[in-house]
Amino acid sequence: MPVLLSPPAAAALLPVAGVRLGVAEAAIRKQNRKDLTLIELAPGARVAGVFTQNRFCAAPVQVCKAHLPAGEVRALVINTGVANAGTGEPGLAAARASCEAVGALLGVSARQVLPFSTGVILEPLPVERLVAGLPAAREALRADGWFDACHGIMTTDTVPKAASRQVTIGGKTVTLTGMSKGAGMIKPNMATMLGFLATDADVAQPLLDALVKEVADLSFNSITVDGDTSTNDSFILIATGQAGNPTLSDPASADYATFRAAVLDLSIWLAQAIVRDGEGATKFITLQVEGGASRDECRKVGYAIGHSPLVKTAFFASDPNLGRILAAIGYAGIDDLDVSRLRVWLASAGEEVLVAEQGGRAASYREDAGARVMQEAEITVRVDLARGSATATLWSCDFSYDYVKINADYRS
Amino acid sequence: MPVLLSPPAAAALLPVAGVRLGVAEAAIRKQNRKDLTLIELAPGARVAGVFTQNRFCAAPVQVCKAHLPAGEVRALVINTGVANAGTGEPGLAAARASCEAVGALLGVSARQVLPFSTGVILEPLPVERLVAGLPAAREALRADGWFDACHGIMTTDTVPKAASRQVTIGGKTVTLTGMSKGAGMIKPNMATMLGFLATDADVAQPLLDALVKEVADLSFNSITVDGDTSTNDSFILIATGQAGNPTLSDPASADYATFRAAVLDLSIWLAQAIVRDGEGATKFITLQVEGGASRDECRKVGYAIGHSPLVKTAFFASDPNLGRILAAIGYAGIDDLDVSRLRVWLASAGEEVLVAEQGGRAASYREDAGARVMQEAEITVRVDLARGSATATLWSCDFSYDYVKINADYRS
Repeated sequence: MPVLLSPPAAAALLPVAGVRLGVAEAAIRKQNRKDLTLIELAPGARVAGVFTQNRFCAAPVQVCKAHLPAGEVRALVINTGVANAGTGEPGLAAARASCEAVGALLGVSARQVLPFSTGVILEPLPVERLVAGLPAAREALRADGWFDACHGIMTTDTVPKAASRQVTIGGKTVTLTGMSKGAGMIKPNMATMLGFLATDADVAQPLLDALVKEVADLSFNSITVDGDTSTNDSFILIATGQAGNPTLSDPASADYATFRAAVLDLSIWLAQAIVRDGEGATKFITLQVEGGASRDECRKVGYAIGHSPLVKTAFFASDPNLGRILAAIGYAGIDDLDVSRLRVWLASAGEEVLVAEQGGRAASYREDAGARVMQEAEITVRVDLARGSATATLWSCDFSYDYVKINADYRS
Repeated sequence: MPVLLSPPAAAALLPVAGVRLGVAEAAIRKQNRKDLTLIELAPGARVAGVFTQNRFCAAPVQVCKAHLPAGEVRALVINTGVANAGTGEPGLAAARASCEAVGALLGVSARQVLPFSTGVILEPLPVERLVAGLPAAREALRADGWFDACHGIMTTDTVPKAASRQVTIGGKTVTLTGMSKGAGMIKPNMATMLGFLATDADVAQPLLDALVKEVADLSFNSITVDGDTSTNDSFILIATGQAGNPTLSDPASADYATFRAAVLDLSIWLAQAIVRDGEGATKFITLQVEGGASRDECRKVGYAIGHSPLVKTAFFASDPNLGRILAAIGYAGIDDLDVSRLRVWLASAGEEVLVAEQGGRAASYREDAGARVMQEAEITVRVDLARGSATATLWSCDFSYDYVKINADYRS
């Protein structure tokens, strides 16, 4: 039951010149599932990525980190079902073997292939089945393969997540198409498992490398479903350079600002889509923290609210149990926080209600106003820390019976 | 559905010389509930306490912190229903007014009274109802009032939590009786809301002050239900000095070691009882982390496992989804953790199963062994970080449908 999130129309996903995608059924974990996605990039594409900070980072993440700096990436291979994480040396060998097989099939080097896996941790990757499925995935390669691919990377997601944008840069139309998957184990610390954004823009590599980090921080690294940071989180930004625009290389240029805004807009949409389709989610919650001494402390406050099971169950119940929000702010880790200066609002559907001020419930607060806001499917919690001018915005969801059901049943 | 936790027998709760307890119905939030508990201490009792680190600390906690250093505490007053937290200046005035009323009733100064509240945050405390209920509570004061009192401090607790111990010190029998309440918003950061432990031992104040911190760290500050640190957490250690033992003042003495061990044992029992009766809990989980470079990092790893909703729902499902445990260890915040050296075991009912080693699933691991352990109601997760000699033990519970139900319904 995703929150205000619809599947994309196939026609709405615009091809990106230089990118072809194909999906196949490889029976990685279960039969009759589209569980293998191949993405082929034309020569000259530039690629940048950010990956999970989890110390148990998955074998494919380790291989990506080794292959990415080596040079021209020509293919990405993505399997669902098995995460190939917590699999030790055999897992690394399996990830490398999948790159070898893709390289042989496409006539490129194994080091030009990036592997991605998502699914159950600690299970060995059946690499022979993955390899056996590759020819079918190559057969399926199409420029308009985004629709199939955004289905092919789903696990417990209930809705495929993909969208396109177009902007004009240097008189040329530049296309951006991206897709993501998420659902659980979502508190990305370097981008969620998995986000892919491709554009035909021509972008210099140093700018692309900086942009992927900046954008990940403001999108995939600003969401949480359950506070668990996955072993496999990866966000990949691809620029094929085929739009014909003058190469973007000056971070201060107006063209770069246009491009950056489009990448950020699409990335935030993809990241929010993961929250809207969070496991068991019934509410989409924006946590807007302002007046902080630093962005970091604003994020701490936002995550304390966004992770609190008590706050999340209150949202599920549409119960304006505001004390739980104040308690979460209180334990967020700001030692010298003056709670008497802090203000908290609840907002939804054009209505903003002041909830707390001067260390307690606002004198103007009426329970019926709080209850009205809490009934909505999209709710904003705004917190003014009154300590400075830093801000941060995070996105989260509520915590329902279905979260427990989904995660108690996931492997069965 | 508490995990292997029974209510105490009334006769098992031993009176502590110098302590009398009385309970009354004051209709603080609902009618016909024993929601007001008064504890009277004889002159000469020494008291030490530790309190929540939440910046939104409740009004009664602020008053306790002001009254405790002032001198001889003669009474404690505890109400349920309303936490008197996030209530600003009017909340402080209400907490002070309840101390004034108790003082007037017992003929002591208001500064000799410690107030405690537990219940809903952000609601004003109806102090006039509390004050009106005090005479009945005073009428009820009895040395064997522990059984009533451990019922009187319950909120969403399903089982009252209290126990006694006796040890011999300097040839004298010393009695310790304690009680606690918990259930939700449980990740104490200075002792949970609420723990009271009284003994008739004669203990010097400096030793009592040190002991309360040391014991809180190893008991109430080593548990978690949902990771939310309450605004009201308080743990109070009372020594009435009426046992006739030579005053304990040397921390290196054998008598003090005996006494410390008894206080610690009872405090751990009371803290574990809170976890066993955690909201919706069906499993009691011990997190034993060893081989750490510091106790702090062992606790980080334990709490990462103990707070992970994915791990907690897997325990609820009795599913040995061990990858979730590894993922939690991986994001616990140890930057230079070498996952290839780490080992993880699951243990229960005399069986210990090596689950993970060398960065992946242990070669010897069999799913049926893991599944057998996970079926038990008490499970130990043992983690060897292989980085040093520090250890930490925490206690946690699983995450069930009932947790969501209880917290989505709590205010209604």
